[in-house]
Amino acid sequence: MKLATLKNNTRDGQLVVVNHDLSLAIAIPDVAHTLQFALDHWEECKPKLEQYAHDLNSGKIKNDLPFKNQNMASPLPRAYQWADGSAYVNHVELVRQARGAELPDNFWHDPLLYQGGSDTFLGPYDAIPLVDEAWGLDFEAEIAVITTDVSMGITPEKASEKICLFMLVNDISLRNLIPNELAKGFGFFQSKPSSAFSPVAITPDEFIQAWDGKKINLPLTTYYNKQLFGTPNAGVDMTFDFPTLIAHAAKTRKLNAGTIIGSGTISNYDKSKGSSCIAEKRMLEMITKGKAETPFMKAGDHVRIEMFDHEKKSLFGAIDQEVKQYAHAL
Amino acid sequence: MKLATLKNNTRDGQLVVVNHDLSLAIAIPDVAHTLQFALDHWEECKPKLEQYAHDLNSGKIKNDLPFKNQNMASPLPRAYQWADGSAYVNHVELVRQARGAELPDNFWHDPLLYQGGSDTFLGPYDAIPLVDEAWGLDFEAEIAVITTDVSMGITPEKASEKICLFMLVNDISLRNLIPNELAKGFGFFQSKPSSAFSPVAITPDEFIQAWDGKKINLPLTTYYNKQLFGTPNAGVDMTFDFPTLIAHAAKTRKLNAGTIIGSGTISNYDKSKGSSCIAEKRMLEMITKGKAETPFMKAGDHVRIEMFDHEKKSLFGAIDQEVKQYAHAL
Repeated sequence: MKLATLKNNTRDGQLVVVNHDLSLAIAIPDVAHTLQFALDHWEECKPKLEQYAHDLNSGKIKNDLPFKNQNMASPLPRAYQWADGSAYVNHVELVRQARGAELPDNFWHDPLLYQGGSDTFLGPYDAIPLVDEAWGLDFEAEIAVITTDVSMGITPEKASEKICLFMLVNDISLRNLIPNELAKGFGFFQSKPSSAFSPVAITPDEFIQAWDGKKINLPLTTYYNKQLFGTPNAGVDMTFDFPTLIAHAAKTRKLNAGTIIGSGTISNYDKSKGSSCIAEKRMLEMITKGKAETPFMKAGDHVRIEMFDHEKKSLFGAIDQEVKQYAHAL
Repeated sequence: MKLATLKNNTRDGQLVVVNHDLSLAIAIPDVAHTLQFALDHWEECKPKLEQYAHDLNSGKIKNDLPFKNQNMASPLPRAYQWADGSAYVNHVELVRQARGAELPDNFWHDPLLYQGGSDTFLGPYDAIPLVDEAWGLDFEAEIAVITTDVSMGITPEKASEKICLFMLVNDISLRNLIPNELAKGFGFFQSKPSSAFSPVAITPDEFIQAWDGKKINLPLTTYYNKQLFGTPNAGVDMTFDFPTLIAHAAKTRKLNAGTIIGSGTISNYDKSKGSSCIAEKRMLEMITKGKAETPFMKAGDHVRIEMFDHEKKSLFGAIDQEVKQYAHAL
């Protein structure tokens, strides 16, 4: 099943069911107006949504709408919990190296997860606001899961069952604000502005074989300014799988339905696969060429993030964002 | 105006208007079922809520209910944004000293703010779950504001106008999990479990003179196991005021209506005023007695946090929580 949120000038948008090939959608107000409502009542809503999805895919429903990525908000336009991991420790090692920081040994066995801000997500086709080029604007291509309610102290084995939906993420970062914030010891805040998510969120069965209960074994494709930037495989070199990240997040608290847990930037040791963010590319340039050559993003730059199944069909639609200069309101 | 959220077995509870002396409440379903809805539509809802508050306080409304702190959830049982400052830098200095970390000079001019988790707040009378005494369970008595929508890059001058409500907070901390998390560089996560807020949220006019547009000039009272623990004045030694904290939070993102911004633990240089958390008391013991004597919280320990106006009336009701051993579900 594929779900999306149509922009309708409300804060939470309109939940729609989308067909497999992302061409048709249907609103289902008799089941749920918003995705958060459906997640809050997942046991009751899920079978009804699945019935609509089945009828939409089989052609039984006639009052459908054309589905357009551009008209979608993020599946959850705002959420109560967004925790982003750094599960590809290979990437963390490179980024740390780039900012002259050492990687402690426990990063290989103690999951890294930061508390993200979740009140104002960007839509998948929304412009990325640029205030100051000197802040070092960067994209990060990731995968995220949405959970149902998770009890405190859950085991990774049980956490896998709490995953109800998957999305792609552009975890936008302001690289040059990070060193000062991390030096203060309280983690990211200004350096992690609003993230954007894929036009659709999908249930595990949509992956057929590619979801193994722990990882998604497919490449994540990033184009930067229309050039292929990276296709690392999300199932390769993931040090901490999704159930492990969820269990880590729920160690001292329960998690509310609609919790989003991110993988962190997808990164493979095999550098022929490219990268999922500029910071990693700059680091590799420093190693191979002695200096970073790829600048961070400026107005007009464009990033497109997408995942294709084994038949080359887009699973989530695309995150497709251009950077636009932001003018402060007077 | 005073607003509260009655527990009613839903995730967001039932919004009620409460009278000045916290004895009566009335549900107002014709205006808003939940506080988040009222905040999402604040311009329309505020005058209607104020009319109800006026009629309740003047005795015009007869179908009211007795108000009981114990039946309340936190005013926002879950929120989209909870960012907690450390505005009393005096406190930060002491806590850093206690964990052997230095205080960088920029802490005195660059606000410290961490991204909190906001999906599952505790109610003001809910038990604090204790999983492992070795984690170092502590309370922190604070004040928080709730904002309407805040645009990116707002100035502190304009940020003051975005404050619509105030609450008290118990920002529960797991002190012994902090050093490892901060060493990883990504800030707090497991070391900051669910916070609890006061039974009522109040508008600025409820303070009469005590709110000066930047700070609240009243003591915050904490009782620990029925003994007075601290009465530091929230208007004294606050290095970064609320408008400054909001502007800091909104530097690289807009903030959604219902954003909660906390002051951090209230702390005065005048130590005759006591403390607002155990960690600070332990630090002072180390300085004066050579070792920390007050243990962190264990099952059965009890904390009560309250603020009184100049007539000794409780402004927010009390946060009143007992620690209870948590048993993991099998």
